[in-house]
Amino acid sequence: MRTLYHLALSPQSRLIRLVLGEKRMEVHLRAEPVWERRDEFLAINPAGEVPVLVEDDGSTIAGSQAIAEYLEECDDTIPLLPGTIADRAEIRRLVSWFDRKFDREVTDLLVGEKVMKRFLGIGEPSSSAIRAGHANLQIHLAYIAWLAERRTWLAGDKFSLADLAAAAHLSCVDYLGDVPWDHAPEAKEWYARVKSRPAFRSLLADAVPGLRPVGHYADLDF
Amino acid sequence: MRTLYHLALSPQSRLIRLVLGEKRMEVHLRAEPVWERRDEFLAINPAGEVPVLVEDDGSTIAGSQAIAEYLEECDDTIPLLPGTIADRAEIRRLVSWFDRKFDREVTDLLVGEKVMKRFLGIGEPSSSAIRAGHANLQIHLAYIAWLAERRTWLAGDKFSLADLAAAAHLSCVDYLGDVPWDHAPEAKEWYARVKSRPAFRSLLADAVPGLRPVGHYADLDF
Repeated sequence: MRTLYHLALSPQSRLIRLVLGEKRMEVHLRAEPVWERRDEFLAINPAGEVPVLVEDDGSTIAGSQAIAEYLEECDDTIPLLPGTIADRAEIRRLVSWFDRKFDREVTDLLVGEKVMKRFLGIGEPSSSAIRAGHANLQIHLAYIAWLAERRTWLAGDKFSLADLAAAAHLSCVDYLGDVPWDHAPEAKEWYARVKSRPAFRSLLADAVPGLRPVGHYADLDF
Repeated sequence: MRTLYHLALSPQSRLIRLVLGEKRMEVHLRAEPVWERRDEFLAINPAGEVPVLVEDDGSTIAGSQAIAEYLEECDDTIPLLPGTIADRAEIRRLVSWFDRKFDREVTDLLVGEKVMKRFLGIGEPSSSAIRAGHANLQIHLAYIAWLAERRTWLAGDKFSLADLAAAAHLSCVDYLGDVPWDHAPEAKEWYARVKSRPAFRSLLADAVPGLRPVGHYADLDF
């Protein structure tokens, strides 16, 4: 069976777990303590980052973007980049939005400061970074709400990788209880729909040692 | 004719200019002063970032990754993601390497500090950031040299988007004269081959107002 090197609160890893789940592909999950910089892991991915997918034949694919496109090319019977060339471009625009912009402006400032800094042993959380993360999150939630009001799913009529990328990031922030859902009901309604998909179950069962999720984290009716 | 909103020293914009050049697709270049946050531009791309491609029919594609995949899907007679599914995964891994890792560890710390901070009006360059950028660049050059020693092009036997992504970033840093080419002859030899491609010419003619490129910047025999 294929193996995914991952971390529970890495949104890029969560994205790939969701892709595999949606495509009903089995995977063996292996948590990789990237902060230990194990030689064996660096040989697989010199970037030293998760996710990394290792296929049965030993071939490895590193990075969420490369893995997501790879899995889509391997099997698109359940497509996550559906539609025309232009539809696919809009999906990819939003995937980048979440994996670059949301990552830098929200995830890094909240999950990065509160969780990863501790694991990496690089000091105390910065309260100004956390404040900025909360402020940026309000703007991002408003954008998600704006999209969700106008479209069935974030990128258009069809469920896609864009919904999974957004939900992967939000689910990490939500684990910490940092998403003010009541400020953005349309975003909450969209997230509830993604969260109730079977592929999401494994994420909701995650438990990071020493860090319990907020009470509503696994609640589908939050 | 299609229009590309770009900035001369944005590596993501340069990547798309190179893709268009390699595919022999004509484009009208329009420099977008993203720091002005023009309403008209934010309506096209709410992320407020370049590159953005606008097609003749008015459709827009935002973000280098989405645009590169889009252009490949529009016309792959000159493929930039050539080979098998696994080959394409390796190309995309390296594109992410440069667009995320190199960007964060080198481009942001050198071009970001020395150039973009001035345009954005957000203070003086940080000398510690610049020192870190130089140190990280040595490691990245060694990795490029390592790849170039073992492969014809960075991702394998065939020229690909990975070479363009790497060269797009390096060319911005090289504009500032910050690449210690003599420390990594294999990387230099690879870069000389990319730099001599016709698609590169428009990049070598770039001139940022108030910031002249280093002497060897446009020299093919540097």
